[in-house]
Amino acid sequence: MPHGSGFDIPETMKAWVLGDPDELKPVEKSVPSPGTAEVLIRIDAVAICATDLEIISHGAPALIDGGPPFNKNFTPGHEFMGTIVQLGPTVDEYAVGDRVAVEIHAGCGRCRRCRMGMYTSCLNYGANFGDFSKGHRANGYTTDGAFTQYAVNHVNTLVRVPDAMSDEVATLIVTAGTATYGLDVLGGLVAGDSLVVTGAGPIGLLGVAVGKALGAEPVILTDIVDERLEIGVRLGADHVINAAREPAVEAVRRANGGHGVDFALECSGVPSALDDVIAMVNRGARICLAAFAHGPVKVDISQIVMNNTYLFGIRGEGKSAVRRAAALMAQQKFDATPVHTHTFPLSELPEALRHAREKLDGAIKVVIRNQDW
Amino acid sequence: MPHGSGFDIPETMKAWVLGDPDELKPVEKSVPSPGTAEVLIRIDAVAICATDLEIISHGAPALIDGGPPFNKNFTPGHEFMGTIVQLGPTVDEYAVGDRVAVEIHAGCGRCRRCRMGMYTSCLNYGANFGDFSKGHRANGYTTDGAFTQYAVNHVNTLVRVPDAMSDEVATLIVTAGTATYGLDVLGGLVAGDSLVVTGAGPIGLLGVAVGKALGAEPVILTDIVDERLEIGVRLGADHVINAAREPAVEAVRRANGGHGVDFALECSGVPSALDDVIAMVNRGARICLAAFAHGPVKVDISQIVMNNTYLFGIRGEGKSAVRRAAALMAQQKFDATPVHTHTFPLSELPEALRHAREKLDGAIKVVIRNQDW
Amino acid sequence: MPHGSGFDIPETMKAWVLGDPDELKPVEKSVPSPGTAEVLIRIDAVAICATDLEIISHGAPALIDGGPPFNKNFTPGHEFMGTIVQLGPTVDEYAVGDRVAVEIHAGCGRCRRCRMGMYTSCLNYGANFGDFSKGHRANGYTTDGAFTQYAVNHVNTLVRVPDAMSDEVATLIVTAGTATYGLDVLGGLVAGDSLVVTGAGPIGLLGVAVGKALGAEPVILTDIVDERLEIGVRLGADHVINAAREPAVEAVRRANGGHGVDFALECSGVPSALDDVIAMVNRGARICLAAFAHGPVKVDISQIVMNNTYLFGIRGEGKSAVRRAAALMAQQKFDATPVHTHTFPLSELPEALRHAREKLDGAIKVVIRNQDW
Amino acid sequence: MPHGSGFDIPETMKAWVLGDPDELKPVEKSVPSPGTAEVLIRIDAVAICATDLEIISHGAPALIDGGPPFNKNFTPGHEFMGTIVQLGPTVDEYAVGDRVAVEIHAGCGRCRRCRMGMYTSCLNYGANFGDFSKGHRANGYTTDGAFTQYAVNHVNTLVRVPDAMSDEVATLIVTAGTATYGLDVLGGLVAGDSLVVTGAGPIGLLGVAVGKALGAEPVILTDIVDERLEIGVRLGADHVINAAREPAVEAVRRANGGHGVDFALECSGVPSALDDVIAMVNRGARICLAAFAHGPVKVDISQIVMNNTYLFGIRGEGKSAVRRAAALMAQQKFDATPVHTHTFPLSELPEALRHAREKLDGAIKVVIRNQDW
Repeated sequence: MPHGSGFDIPETMKAWVLGDPDELKPVEKSVPSPGTAEVLIRIDAVAICATDLEIISHGAPALIDGGPPFNKNFTPGHEFMGTIVQLGPTVDEYAVGDRVAVEIHAGCGRCRRCRMGMYTSCLNYGANFGDFSKGHRANGYTTDGAFTQYAVNHVNTLVRVPDAMSDEVATLIVTAGTATYGLDVLGGLVAGDSLVVTGAGPIGLLGVAVGKALGAEPVILTDIVDERLEIGVRLGADHVINAAREPAVEAVRRANGGHGVDFALECSGVPSALDDVIAMVNRGARICLAAFAHGPVKVDISQIVMNNTYLFGIRGEGKSAVRRAAALMAQQKFDATPVHTHTFPLSELPEALRHAREKLDGAIKVVIRNQDW
Repeated sequence: MPHGSGFDIPETMKAWVLGDPDELKPVEKSVPSPGTAEVLIRIDAVAICATDLEIISHGAPALIDGGPPFNKNFTPGHEFMGTIVQLGPTVDEYAVGDRVAVEIHAGCGRCRRCRMGMYTSCLNYGANFGDFSKGHRANGYTTDGAFTQYAVNHVNTLVRVPDAMSDEVATLIVTAGTATYGLDVLGGLVAGDSLVVTGAGPIGLLGVAVGKALGAEPVILTDIVDERLEIGVRLGADHVINAAREPAVEAVRRANGGHGVDFALECSGVPSALDDVIAMVNRGARICLAAFAHGPVKVDISQIVMNNTYLFGIRGEGKSAVRRAAALMAQQKFDATPVHTHTFPLSELPEALRHAREKLDGAIKVVIRNQDW
Repeated sequence: MPHGSGFDIPETMKAWVLGDPDELKPVEKSVPSPGTAEVLIRIDAVAICATDLEIISHGAPALIDGGPPFNKNFTPGHEFMGTIVQLGPTVDEYAVGDRVAVEIHAGCGRCRRCRMGMYTSCLNYGANFGDFSKGHRANGYTTDGAFTQYAVNHVNTLVRVPDAMSDEVATLIVTAGTATYGLDVLGGLVAGDSLVVTGAGPIGLLGVAVGKALGAEPVILTDIVDERLEIGVRLGADHVINAAREPAVEAVRRANGGHGVDFALECSGVPSALDDVIAMVNRGARICLAAFAHGPVKVDISQIVMNNTYLFGIRGEGKSAVRRAAALMAQQKFDATPVHTHTFPLSELPEALRHAREKLDGAIKVVIRNQDW
Repeated sequence: MPHGSGFDIPETMKAWVLGDPDELKPVEKSVPSPGTAEVLIRIDAVAICATDLEIISHGAPALIDGGPPFNKNFTPGHEFMGTIVQLGPTVDEYAVGDRVAVEIHAGCGRCRRCRMGMYTSCLNYGANFGDFSKGHRANGYTTDGAFTQYAVNHVNTLVRVPDAMSDEVATLIVTAGTATYGLDVLGGLVAGDSLVVTGAGPIGLLGVAVGKALGAEPVILTDIVDERLEIGVRLGADHVINAAREPAVEAVRRANGGHGVDFALECSGVPSALDDVIAMVNRGARICLAAFAHGPVKVDISQIVMNNTYLFGIRGEGKSAVRRAAALMAQQKFDATPVHTHTFPLSELPEALRHAREKLDGAIKVVIRNQDW
C-alpha cells in the first residue's frame, strides 16, 4: 500500500492515446498506483520530442510483441516533469510535493547491461507488457507516457527540480541529460578540446550549452537554419556554420584552425551526417551519434578504421547524466530558456504537435502544460 | 655515435623498392644508422600482410605529401622480426643480439594523441619525410619497411621474442597484437562473454585465439572458406559459420543461444560487414572494426543509435597490446603456428606476394626469410 | 506465487545460528520463499571463509541497527553453491534443477552506486532488516546465510556451475570471483605485466591462478608458510617468497629483475602489508587491498603520493567478476582443486570451523556439504 | 641549430642555486640552448610552492644518484610562465613571442608509463643527470628550475597563456592543473556530486574552484585558518569548516545532508588527513591524495577495504590536465586571483621565500617576477 499523501488524487484522469496512425484520441483512464519502488507523479509539463512525432505516425520501436501500439490505449510522451503526489511503500528518497524531472528509461536491474550500469541498454527493453514484466520501462516508448495527467515512475528515473526553475525549462532537463550523456560517452573531459555539434535541434543546442559549460573550445555548430544557429550562438557556440551555404566539412576544419576536431556530437540525423562527421574529426577522435536517418546510409568505413575513430550510438540519456545535467542547470552554468519556444495546454496537444512537426513560427521545443482540460 | 656491436654490419644491403604500381624492384641501399633512441635490426623474417599488397598496387596511405611512393626508392613490408645488431646512444633497454618483434607504429610523442598514449593515432602521422620530422614512423607505410635486410626502429616499437619461438611464428606477434588491441579497445574483459569474429584472415584467426585465451565464450567465427574456418576451430573457435552457405546474422545469434553477442571483431572488410555485425550484437555491445571495404558502404545507422552500439575503428596495433600478445604467445596460451602456411626467401618476394595475393595453396600467412640472396 | 518445481521442498530446515559470541546453535527454521526476482536454492556445499570466523566471534559488520546479531536467529555462511528448487514469479533466466554458485552481494538497484554498476558498494548496505528493505542483501553478513539447507537469493547473484565441476570446487567460484574482481579493478589487462600477491590464503592463491590464466608475468607470491607457497607454485606462481625468512620487499623487486612490480593484490591483512606493498611496486602502479588488519596501521603515505600509486579497496566480489571467474574455471584455465583441503558434513560445522580457524592439518579451504543431518 | 628569434638572448643569466641546506646563492649561468623538440623560455614569473621550501631545506626527491643537490649549482623553482624566445629545430607548435605556462614534468616517452600517457609516473624519473639521459625532466626537482631568467623545456610541457591573463595569474595555471588532474583521476564527472577538499592551500583552493566550475555540489572545504576558508568561499565553496573549532568528519557529513561525500581531494598533508578523509566519504567513493605528511601515519585500512574506497596518489599534474585547467581559466570559469597574495622581484627571492614559509601577512601564493636584477 503506497504511503503518504497531501494531494487529492482522483480515480481517473484525462489522457491522449494512439488511435490510427497520426491520430491521437482523448480518453479517460484510471490513475495508476505506484509499485514498491515507484512514485505517482502529477504531470505538470511535458515537452514534445521528434520521437513522439514518429511514434504517433509509425508506432513505438522495438516492442517485444513486434506490433505498433495503435488503437491499444497507448499514451505517448516522455520528456516530462511534475510533482510527486504519492510514494510507493519503500520510497524515502523523495517526499510528496517534490518537483521532479523524469528520465525516460528504467532498466530491469537484472540483465547484463543493467548490472554494468547501462540501464538504457537494458537487454529486457520492452519486455514489460502483460503478465511478464521484469521492470524495464521507457516512458512513452514501451510503457504509457506523459501526454496525460498522472504517471507512475521508478525512483531511479527521478531528479529534483530546483524551486527557481520553471516547469517549462524543467522539461528540458532530460534533453540536456541526453546531450550530457553524449559528452560523457565521449569521455567527459572536454575542457580545452574542440567539439563539433551537427544539427541545431534541442539536443544539439543543449549539446552546445553543456559543452561550453564544461569548457570545450572551440564549440562549432552546424545546421541549415540561421535562426537555430543564432540560438546556438546565444547558448555559447564559438562558430556556427550554415551547411546549406557552405561545405560544412571544410568550414568546420577551418573554424578549428585547419585541424580536425577532437569530439563530435551528431544530432541532425541527415543521411550524409556520419560521412561528414568522420571527415570533420582528427585521428583518434570520438563521435557520439544521438540521431539517425531511417534506412541505410552510405558511409566510408575506411575513414573510421584508418583514423582510429570511435563511434558511440546513444538512445537518449544514460548513466545518471540527467542528474548531472540538472545540476549544471540548477547552478545556472547555462540558460536553456532559448530552446523553449512555445507552450500549449494539454487539451491542445494536436495543435502543439502540429507546431513541432511543421516547425511553425520558429518552433524548437514545444511544451505542453497540464491545465485547461 | 651508436654504441655496442658484436655483429658485422655491412655498409649496404639488398632491398625491394616500389617501381611502378604492382612492380617491385631489387636495389642496393645503405644500411641505416640508429638515432638516439633507436636500434639497428637485422631483419630475420617478415610476413606479408594484405596491406602490403595494396601498397604495392596503390601506394601507401595518408602520406603528408599526398602522393604514392612509386619510383621513389620506397621499401614496403611491416610485419617483421629480427636481431638487434646496434644500439642508439641512449638505449639500454635492449642488448645487441636480442631477438625482437617490431610494432609498426612509433608515435611522435608530442601530439595530443601520443600524450594520451594513443601513439597509433599520432596526429603527426606521416609527417616524417624530408627535413621536417617529428619522429612518427609507420614501417612500410610512411617510412621504409622490412622487405630488406636491415632496419632502424625506435625502442618503443620493440618486444622481445622468447628463445623457444621460431622466427616465422614471431612475425605473427604483431598480427596477434592487432587482434589483442582489438579486444582491448572493446574493454579487454571478455571472460565469459560472447564474441563473434567476422573474417578468418590472420587477424581474425588470431582474434579467435586471443579471445579464447582470455576466456571469451562462445567465440563464433564467420568466413566463406571452409579451410580457414577449420583453422579457426584449431585455434579454439566454439562455432564456425560459413556465410556463403547460410545467413550469417541468424546463424551467429543461434550459436549464441538466440541472443545477440556481446563483442564483435570485424576482420573481413567486405562491404556488408558492418551492417551484418550490428545485427549480430546485443544492446550496448561493442564492435571493433579492424578491416574495411574501399569506398562507401551502406549502413543502417539507426541500429547503432537505437541499440546503444559502440564502434571502435583500429588501424593496426596500439597501447602496447603487441607486448601483451607476445606474452600470451610466450606463455603458450595459444599456438599461432596454423596461421603460418608458407615460407619463401627474400630473393623470391614476388613469388611470395603472388601466393599471398592469390591465396595459392591455401596460403594464409606467407613469411619471407632474409636468406639466400 | 513462485512457479515451477520438481523437488520436494520441506516446510522446515535445519540451520546453524549465532548464539553467544563464538557459539553456533542448531535450530529448525522455516524454508524461505523466493520473491519476485528470486530463487530458492537447496544448498549443496558451502565453504568457510575467514570472515565467517570473525562474524561468529564478533558479529556481522555494518548492520544498520548497529548491533551484532548474536542470539537473534542469524545464520552466517556465504560461500555457497547449490541447486535451484523453486523460481520466483518473474524468473526465466534459470530453471529448476540448475546448479549455481552464489555471489554474496545483491545491491538495492536504486542508490547512486548500484546505478553505476557498483552493487557491492551499495549505499543501502545493511538496510534490509525489518519492514524497511530496499533489497540489498549480503548473504551471511546482513541477511541469513548458508550454514543451513535452503536459501533464497536474487537472480543477480547466480552463476551457473558446469556439470563437470564438483560441488566442492564450485564453492570456490565466489572466492575466485573476488580475486578476479581484484584484478579487474586494477584494470584487467595484466598479460605481460608483473604482479605480486601478498598472502597465500584462498583469495591470494586464486589471485595467483587468475593472474597466470590472464597472462601476468612474473607472478610473485609471498607468505610465511611454505606449504601454502608450494600450493601457489602448483597454481602457477613464477616466484614464491617466504617473508619469514627473507625481507619480502627486496625479494619481490629482485624477482622482478630489480624493478618494482606493476600490480599488487594484497590478501594477507597483516599490519605491515600496505607499507610493504607500496614499496614493492613501481611508479604509477596499482594496488588492490582485499584484506585488512584490525585497527590502525602505520603507512608511509608519502610513497603513495610521490609514486602516483593507486589503491583500490574491495570488499569481496563485484561487477560480475564472479561470472568471469566461473567462465575461466569452466574452461579449465586453472585448477582450483589444491585450495580445497577438507570436507565436513553440515552436522559437523563446529569441527569444520575449528579446522579452518586453527589451520589444522594444513587446512586452507574447508567445505561443508549439506548431508548427514 | 635552433631556428627563429626576435629576442636578444644573452649568453649568461642570473640564477639562484642551492648552497648549503636552507641557503640560496645568486650565480651567473650560461643561458641554455633548446634541443630538437624544446624551446627556450624567458621566465617572466614564477610562483613559490611548498615543495620549493622543502627542496631548499632538504634537497630534491628521488634523484637517481641518491643525493640532494646542495652546492651543485642546482636551481630550484617549478611553477613558472614566460615568453618563448627561441625554438628547437623541429618545433612548429609554438612561435617566438608566445606566452606560455609550463608543466613541471616531461616524460621520457619510452617507458611503460609514458607509453600509457602517464608521463608524471615516468619510470625514468630522475634519470637525466650526466651523460645518460632518456629525456625525463621535472623542473626544479630533477633538472634546473625557474628561480632564474631563462629555461629550456620540451614542447610537451607548454600551454598557451591568453593575452588577457596577467603573468602572476598565469603562474597559477600549473597549480590549477594539479587540482584539475586530481579531479580527473577521480573520474572527472563531478557535476551534481559532492566533493570535500581538505586543506586550503593553493591546490586545495583551486580544487574548490575547478570543482565548482565543473558543477560539483556541494563543495565542502576544511582548513584551520579562517582567512583561507574565506578565500575558499570567494572561489565558490558551498560550505567551509574550520577543523580547529569543530570535528571535521562530522561537520563534513552534516554539510552533505548527513551522508558521506562522493569525492575527496586531500591537500592538507596533515598526519591525520587520510584517516579523516576515509571517514568523510561514502561507500565506493574516490579519494585523491595530493599532499602528504612526512614519515608514517596511522590509517585504519579496514575502512578502505570495507567501504570499497579507491585512493589515487598524485605527484603534481598529469595527462594534460594543465591544458584543461588553462582552458577553464581562459574562459573565466573561475577567478584564481584571490590565491595570489604577494609579488617580489627575482632579486628578493629569499625574502619572498620567507613570506611563503612563514605565511607572513596572509601569504598564500607568492609570485616572483623576473625583473629588477
